[in-house]
Formats: sequence, C-alpha cells, structure tokens
Amino acid sequence: MTEPVPTVDMEKLVSLCQRRGFIFQSSDIYGGLNSCWDYGPLGVELKRNIKEAWWRANVQERDDMVGLDTSILMHPNVWEASGHLTGFSDPLVECKQCHLRWRADQLEGDRCPSCGGELTEPRQFNMMFKTFMGPVEEDAAVVYLRPETAQGIFVNFDNVVNTTRKRLPFGIAQIGKAFRNEITTGNFIFRSREFEQMEIEFFVKPGMDKEWFEYWVQERLNWYSRLGIRRENLQLRPHGEDELAHYASMCSDIEYLFPMGWSELEGIANRGDFDLRQHVEHSGKNLEYYDDVTNEHYLPYVIEPSAGVDRSALAFLCDAYTEEPDKDEIRVLLKLHPDLAPVKVAVLPLSRKENLTAFARAIYADLRQHLITSYDDTQSIGRRYRRQDEVGTPYCVTVDFASLEDNRVTIRERDTMNQIRVPIGALRDTLQAKLAGEDLFVLPEGGEVWKEG
Amino acid sequence: MTEPVPTVDMEKLVSLCQRRGFIFQSSDIYGGLNSCWDYGPLGVELKRNIKEAWWRANVQERDDMVGLDTSILMHPNVWEASGHLTGFSDPLVECKQCHLRWRADQLEGDRCPSCGGELTEPRQFNMMFKTFMGPVEEDAAVVYLRPETAQGIFVNFDNVVNTTRKRLPFGIAQIGKAFRNEITTGNFIFRSREFEQMEIEFFVKPGMDKEWFEYWVQERLNWYSRLGIRRENLQLRPHGEDELAHYASMCSDIEYLFPMGWSELEGIANRGDFDLRQHVEHSGKNLEYYDDVTNEHYLPYVIEPSAGVDRSALAFLCDAYTEEPDKDEIRVLLKLHPDLAPVKVAVLPLSRKENLTAFARAIYADLRQHLITSYDDTQSIGRRYRRQDEVGTPYCVTVDFASLEDNRVTIRERDTMNQIRVPIGALRDTLQAKLAGEDLFVLPEGGEVWKEG
Repeated sequence: MTEPVPTVDMEKLVSLCQRRGFIFQSSDIYGGLNSCWDYGPLGVELKRNIKEAWWRANVQERDDMVGLDTSILMHPNVWEASGHLTGFSDPLVECKQCHLRWRADQLEGDRCPSCGGELTEPRQFNMMFKTFMGPVEEDAAVVYLRPETAQGIFVNFDNVVNTTRKRLPFGIAQIGKAFRNEITTGNFIFRSREFEQMEIEFFVKPGMDKEWFEYWVQERLNWYSRLGIRRENLQLRPHGEDELAHYASMCSDIEYLFPMGWSELEGIANRGDFDLRQHVEHSGKNLEYYDDVTNEHYLPYVIEPSAGVDRSALAFLCDAYTEEPDKDEIRVLLKLHPDLAPVKVAVLPLSRKENLTAFARAIYADLRQHLITSYDDTQSIGRRYRRQDEVGTPYCVTVDFASLEDNRVTIRERDTMNQIRVPIGALRDTLQAKLAGEDLFVLPEGGEVWKEG
Repeated sequence: MTEPVPTVDMEKLVSLCQRRGFIFQSSDIYGGLNSCWDYGPLGVELKRNIKEAWWRANVQERDDMVGLDTSILMHPNVWEASGHLTGFSDPLVECKQCHLRWRADQLEGDRCPSCGGELTEPRQFNMMFKTFMGPVEEDAAVVYLRPETAQGIFVNFDNVVNTTRKRLPFGIAQIGKAFRNEITTGNFIFRSREFEQMEIEFFVKPGMDKEWFEYWVQERLNWYSRLGIRRENLQLRPHGEDELAHYASMCSDIEYLFPMGWSELEGIANRGDFDLRQHVEHSGKNLEYYDDVTNEHYLPYVIEPSAGVDRSALAFLCDAYTEEPDKDEIRVLLKLHPDLAPVKVAVLPLSRKENLTAFARAIYADLRQHLITSYDDTQSIGRRYRRQDEVGTPYCVTVDFASLEDNRVTIRERDTMNQIRVPIGALRDTLQAKLAGEDLFVLPEGGEVWKEG
C-alpha cells in the first residue's frame, strides 16, 4: 500500500484562488492584513454552498436539531465560566535580540529560529481578542470576541429547551465567525485569526454519550465524502489522554491530507457536562434538563462536532484540484461537487454574431432563473472551456450556428469532457437532473453523445 | 387621509420573539449584554431567509452584480483613508455627578437627563471598536472591527475588476457583520452595537450616477414590497444638504413605520468617487477603471444601497404582526411572506393514536425533504393552529382518522383560515404551488374547500 500524497501544492492553489477571484488577501491594496482573507466573487459562492450544505444536512433534514445565531461579542462572565479567560492561552517567548515572538511549544531548540538569539522565559498569552464596549476604555467595559461559537449555544440551552420543547437527544447548530489571536498563523486560510465555524452541540443523556460520539464521527466523515472528498485523503486521529482539552473526555480529529500534510479538518469532542455545569456555577441558573420519560433532572452530556468553514473550503478546493495532460497542454480543473460549484452552468455562444448572441442570451436568461449560470462570449471556445474547468463549473452549454437550425445545443461535461447534444426544450431538465447526480448518459429524446477534441 | 399607525407595540413584539424563540438577549443567563442579541431557532431561519432573498434578488438574478465576503478585521490604513478614524464619532458628554454618559446631540437640555447634574464639555468619541492583533498590546498592533462592510468592497474593487472582467455599470454586494460602539442603543434589534449589513456598491460612469441613484431607490423599495411590507408603512426621506454624510452628494432613507415611529430601514447614497479616490491617495495604487468603449480612464461613481439584516427582520416582523378577533379570543398571527416564514408547513395529526401517528409521520418525512416542515402532536388542534399562526407558518396539514380511509388530508391556510382537502398524492405539489404564490383556490383533482370553525 502506498501512502497518499497531497493533491496540490499550496502555492499553485493560492495562485489559482487569487487569479480567479476565489480568495484575496484582506486589505490587499494596503499590503494585506496578516492572516485575514477576503472571499471574492467565486469564493463567496463556494463558501455559501458549503454552509448551505452543512445547514441542510445538520439542521433542516434532521428532526433532532435546531439552529441558532448568537452574537460575536459576549459577556465576559461567559468566558470566565468556560475557562477561556484563564485557560485559553499559548506559551509565548520573545527573542531578546530581534524581538520576534514565538510559540514556545512549537520551537525545536531554545534559541530564536530567526536570528539565533536568546529567548525570554515563556509566559501564557491569552488568545482572545479584547475590546471595550460602551463609550469608555476601562476594565469594566472589557468584552471579548468569541473564540468559539460553542458558548453561544451553551448559554442558550435553557432558552432553546423552553421555546422549542425539544426532548433529548437533540442538538443545536450554529454557523458564525470566531476570532483567535494566534501567535503564529499560516498555511493560507488554514489557520487565520478570523475564521468561520460550523458547530453542533448535541445534548444526550449521560451514559449515551459514547454511542453518540461514534455516531457523529461517522456522520461527519460521511458528510465530507458525500460532497466529494476522497476517502483516502481523510483519516481519523483519536486524541491521546495527554492532548485532550480540559473540557473533553474523548476527542477525535477528522484530518485531511492538506498540502502541508495531515491536519485537523474537524474535531469531534465529548464535552460531558463540563460547560453546562460551569455555567450553572457561574450564573446561578438551574440548567438541568427535566426528563419526562424517566422523571429525572440532570445536566445532559454534550457531543460537539466542530468544523471550520475556511478549512472545509480549503479541503474541498485541494481535493477538487486536478491537472490532466490534454494534447500539448496541462488541463487544470476543479472537480467540485455540483452542490459546491460556484457556477453550475456556463452558456457559451460559439461567436459574437448577432443572431447567435440573441439566441444564446435567451437560453441564458431562462437557465439563470433556475441555476447559477454565467455567460461568456470572449476568446476561443477552447479557452472558455478551460476557464470554466478551472473554476469548477460542472457544465457548459455551447450554442453554435447549427443550433439556429435544429434548436439543439451541446452540453459539455467538466470532468469527462464528454459532450451531448440536446433539444433546447429538454435543456433545463437535463442539466438539473445531471446536477442532482443522475446519470450523464441518460439522454433526453433526440439527444446524442460524442467526445470533445 | 389618515396617518398610518404602527402595527404593533414593541413590548408585545419583544415578548413574542422571546417566548417563541425568535430572538433572545445575548448572554441571557448572565443578565444580558447590553444591545447584543441572539437569534433563536426560528429567528435564525427568518434571518437566513431574509439574507437569501436579498442575495438572490441582488446577486444571483442579476447580470451586473457579483458578491464578496471580506474580513471583519481590516488594516487600520483602510479606516484612515475612509475617514472613519477621524470622522466616525459622536459628541459625548458625561454627567459630573452620576457619571452617566450621553450623546450631546441627542439631549434637549444642558443638564443630565438622569439626575439633573452638570455635564462635561462634549468631546468626540470614535465609534469604532478597537482591538489588538498579534501577541502584543501596543499601538502598532491596533486594528478595528469594521463599522461598515462597504470598505471591504472598495479596497477589493481592483481585484474584482481584474478577476471577473466586469464592465461598468456593475455592482459588488456583501452581507456581513459590522460593529459600532454606539453611545446610546435601544429599540430592540433596531440599534445594536453588533449588527449585520447587506450592502451594495454599484459602480457607474460619472454622470450616470443620478439615474442609477433613482433606479436603486425604486428597486430597493420594491424589494421590501415584494416580500410583503405594506407600501403605506414605507416612506422615502431625502436627506437635506445639512445632514449628508461627508462622502455623499445625495442620500435618501427608506423609512419604515416602526413601533417607535418612522425610522431608517435602509439608506441609499450617492458616494461619488469619494472612497475610491481616498484609497488611491492612501494606498498609492491606481484604482482607475479603463473604459474600453470610450477609451477613457476614470474613477467610477458609486451608488450605495445599504440595508440592515436586523432592521429588516424587525420591519418584516412588525408588518406581519396581526391581531384578529376570533370567537371570544384574539388570534395572533405573523403574516410573513412564505419566502421569509421560518417554517413552511406543519404536519398535525389529530391525535396520538398509533396508526394516525405512523401515517402522519410518513407524510412529514416526505414533505421535509422538500420544504422546511415541522411536526406537532401535542395539545388540541386549535391550540396547535394558533401556535403555528403565531410563528408565521403559512400552511398546516391536518391528518385525521378519515385520512386513513380516503387518503386525503386537510391544508389549512394561515391568513384566511380556509381549509381544503386534497389527496395525499397531490399534497406536495399543491403546497409548493401555494408557497410560490399560486392561487389558493386552484384545487387539485379530488380536492374540496371549506372554512375553519
């Protein structure tokens, strides 16, 4: 058995992302803001699609889950209770010579990796971003940008139980920004100080937690697979006793084979009743759940599948990135799952001749009411195919002069470059069926197949 | 002609929102965090629907718009260029006696409104939230939470033109959080320190700006109307010369008749080339657009329709809120547009008898694959109708014992309480057609109509 290798190197991917409008550096014209990123016109649609797929699978298609959208600024007591104020820190050392700062636990030697200078003793550096709320900068006004969306869920557990009357087991899901003032960042959008989380807190009866932990590990693995990530590029890594976070009794990372190697894509933790118990103690509120089947009161245990939107985007992009020899060139394509592709269909008239344009525009106007569709009439048809390949558009619809005669157009498939010719009346249904995963080679009446090139 | 009056008082609406899980106070169990709000299970779906409707209308259905999703933390130079560092402030006074702080321009007298004490001289208080990036709290590390999403668009103008090859006129749209450290907040989610914006920067050739300004004012008014806000509760208020922001040559507010009176729902501004020009000066980058039709280089003018997600949510909730006498009671319902309603359909079995439950569950399982559907089998059917009315569910599907015999179920409409009975085979199509706005009284084959009560 051979070890899998990363599908793409980071430099290539970053270049494609910037060139084609997936991801730009934040505040680019001012030299960039370290480790913050802006999603461009294609990136924002990819990100929307990832979040939509997650929400659909985890909230809307489930009976046992509701959503929440809590604020980024939260009461400081929340972070005291959660342990973040005291515990959410990394050991920081500074070089006495060049004054660069480093994470002590990531250094191999005991001298500065940059200049070889002597380092200070490590001190704990809290990773929460702090700001002041209200018109005064004083300790009483300090609030923090949340370092995780999870606590917004815990402090609303009681509100949700009371207003939805959900019974255990059930979960609360949330998508939103979180902020961590990391000492070291890097690997493109993999580790940034501002990022977006997709978190579930799944509340179960104590004793049922191990079972649900296993369930969620599998469920989350399946989610990535269903959206096209190859199973061999995913692995499970259970945490050892020594690396468990203070709140967790079990934790497994779903790792993806990123360009820099196997790294965490998502963590699934068994948080027990740690968080609810802390909030009971600090708020004085009774957050026990009343189980009307067994007539018991207890604090539920919590299984937390915690995913990153940005890391997911990076993994989907990496896994989709493909280079193929094609005649004398290399064809670059993103084999994105149709649900994730920013653009579903591109309409390409063979030339800019007026009658062809009008015809193609009419097709485009119809399709875009139902599917995210783009229109491109510049340069050669081959160049335009390549351009759509590179951003992951699953289907191109080519309109040629014969179309004006026979009312048929060509559908060209991204991954295989297969082409089929279909009557315009069947075009939309055919595309929708193909995008929903039905067989490419089921042809509508009057259709025919051939191969590009 | 009579003056319109607000449709609901704020207290009633806040109470409904908390009771039914639309909106909770942030960090509730710790006494709340002033002016921050959490969206509950129904609120998050309402908010998602509003954002989705806005994105669909403004980005996906338009040829001349692309989206963007830029970071909340931005380079300080951005805010220097935009004028926010020096100009984005309110005059602050403090009571020398009780130390409460006030916005000087909102006070009627010159003594403290709370205790009558003497006030300090006003000083300018900058409303941007400040924090420190990287492992050190020093001036060099200061960054700001964006007070508007707009600047993320301006600094990416060149990136977008280069990667999308869009030609003028075209727009860039963005939805995202923004933060303003307001001295005074209030009116529920109307003015909070953390809020979500839906902003468009629409770039046009100078000289075309007045025309496009008028276009966008109408377009945005129509958007609210299409989603159900009554025209008489909307008004346009052009800004006088003296109240124009420093960047705007024209501005009109779309105001809604909120419970506290007419207040800004959205502002549409003609920002001219102010922002791009500032960024050219401060970044040293050439942000001119090359017009390949006229062979000119110029900085485009910008029309900015800037809406708030939270204010929109509040307006949609207010406008939907209805009380109707119904027998001896008051029926409370939210007449939300079907596109905005958090839940589209509720399946209600008449009793919990086992055979009825299995039957109703099967219907529920089918519907929820296509529509956001809930299931409720508690309490009397009348109570359950009222509960769905109160959260704006457009249709209830009632399953009774006759359903087991004739394979038909009852669809009950929220606003009219009309009921029709339809074969189960036609249920999904009928619901989808009705939700898409087709006539309620077009019955499927084998259907019949009657009236509740």
